[in-house]
Amino acid sequence: MKELEPYYAVIFTTIRTNVGSGYEQMAREMEALASKQPGFLGFETARNELGITVSYWQGLEDIVQWKNNAAHLIAQKKGKEEWYQWYKLRICKVEREYEFHKG
Amino acid sequence: MKELEPYYAVIFTTIRTNVGSGYEQMAREMEALASKQPGFLGFETARNELGITVSYWQGLEDIVQWKNNAAHLIAQKKGKEEWYQWYKLRICKVEREYEFHKG
Repeated sequence: MKELEPYYAVIFTTIRTNVGSGYEQMAREMEALASKQPGFLGFETARNELGITVSYWQGLEDIVQWKNNAAHLIAQKKGKEEWYQWYKLRICKVEREYEFHKG
Repeated sequence: MKELEPYYAVIFTTIRTNVGSGYEQMAREMEALASKQPGFLGFETARNELGITVSYWQGLEDIVQWKNNAAHLIAQKKGKEEWYQWYKLRICKVEREYEFHKG
């Protein structure tokens, strides 16, 4: 990541339905599409019962632009109709950070 | 969660070593201990190759107090010595949030 501080994190916490059809492909497409958006800095994701996906952005306006991206709007609609039982989305300003590398 | 806005998120993204000894027990102990700290609001975690744990706090001073908790300091030291190959910790201010419940 090559962020300039301050930058922003979108924490997307999800519980899936048992409808799997089309989900994995859409998730991959949205990851590829997000990474081409202006201001995109990076992406982290993990899922067990709960899924947590954090995307990082240079500015709030970049997040708004991604939210309103046409293909992403279609994915959001499908997400509510089919794939997600529950989700919470938090838009956060990254204020401090620390990194550790072993050895 | 019963947060008052603004509140804070600590995003702890990790890559483990192959040293597993003691990790799961310590993780459970730290989760239990954090939940008793002043200002603790909640906790979300998921792990595949990458682990993402997000804890939520009412104020920055609550995060500092948890960082300096004696048992947590021991866990942090063990984490660097044994369990984590890499980690990044970001302290973030939650500025907006949206929640979706199906049906």
